[in-house]
Amino acid sequence: MQPYFREAERELTVRRRFDDQRCSIAQALEVLGDWWTLLIIREAFLGVRRFADFEARLGISKNILSQRLKHLVTHDVLAKIDAGEHGPRYEYELTARGKDLATVLTALRQWGDRWIYGEGNEPLVLLDRKTGRPIPRLRIVGEDGEPLRGSDMVPWLRPDER
Amino acid sequence: MQPYFREAERELTVRRRFDDQRCSIAQALEVLGDWWTLLIIREAFLGVRRFADFEARLGISKNILSQRLKHLVTHDVLAKIDAGEHGPRYEYELTARGKDLATVLTALRQWGDRWIYGEGNEPLVLLDRKTGRPIPRLRIVGEDGEPLRGSDMVPWLRPDER
Repeated sequence: MQPYFREAERELTVRRRFDDQRCSIAQALEVLGDWWTLLIIREAFLGVRRFADFEARLGISKNILSQRLKHLVTHDVLAKIDAGEHGPRYEYELTARGKDLATVLTALRQWGDRWIYGEGNEPLVLLDRKTGRPIPRLRIVGEDGEPLRGSDMVPWLRPDER
Repeated sequence: MQPYFREAERELTVRRRFDDQRCSIAQALEVLGDWWTLLIIREAFLGVRRFADFEARLGISKNILSQRLKHLVTHDVLAKIDAGEHGPRYEYELTARGKDLATVLTALRQWGDRWIYGEGNEPLVLLDRKTGRPIPRLRIVGEDGEPLRGSDMVPWLRPDER
């Protein structure tokens, strides 16, 4: 097998074991917590903001939902705000940090679209308002906008991490 | 709160509840299983292919690793191949379906880089071999290559899903 990154294997043999405590993927997964969490975030992207609506749409127990929402507020992915005009009424909204998960959700959705449902069977399609056509797949590109393959990239560990 | 997609809230009120069984994100998460799974895939991208190497680098128990690898082979994310010249020696390699998770891992890594470590402290940077500079952040763009914001996109549920 070719490693995805051409020189990765050779480089990694001279490095110490990758510490999960210093890995953005592992740390992102720490915050995202579990699959429910990402589905809650999906609903928030679709405009859901009230506890009862998350509960009804996800079919999730009050208890688990409450824990997960608290977790997301603690990690500044959602903000809990009082939207009540006559007495308190709480809503959850995506923070800047939460909105920046759009690429994570899009990457997951497009992968599922492609490999599980297949073209023409995607359950939900995001349309570009301007053209009315589906948004293109996310691509890893260079500064010139040209797509990069694995062999075009070199993983580099920050020196204090070696 | 503004929903991420401008018209999402109005549109969703006329739709039936989102069935998790028909959602690419939920289904992708089914396959990816749990966080260990994504960390195993991360290692595969970095060139790891042998059971003992996954085990040593992840600090994961043999039992869990074995289960997760089996799961990933069943779902065609990894292929188990006999790479032995003198007697069997098994290795795991990313399939096309597995390699296509590059955007998912990149999106997660870049989110963690930005919101957990911050610029200049990213534990691992992917460099563009041609320029020697970090690869740009993934962006959701239209067919013309221009970045799209939430309000530029309209979620559309396939008719048989309504």
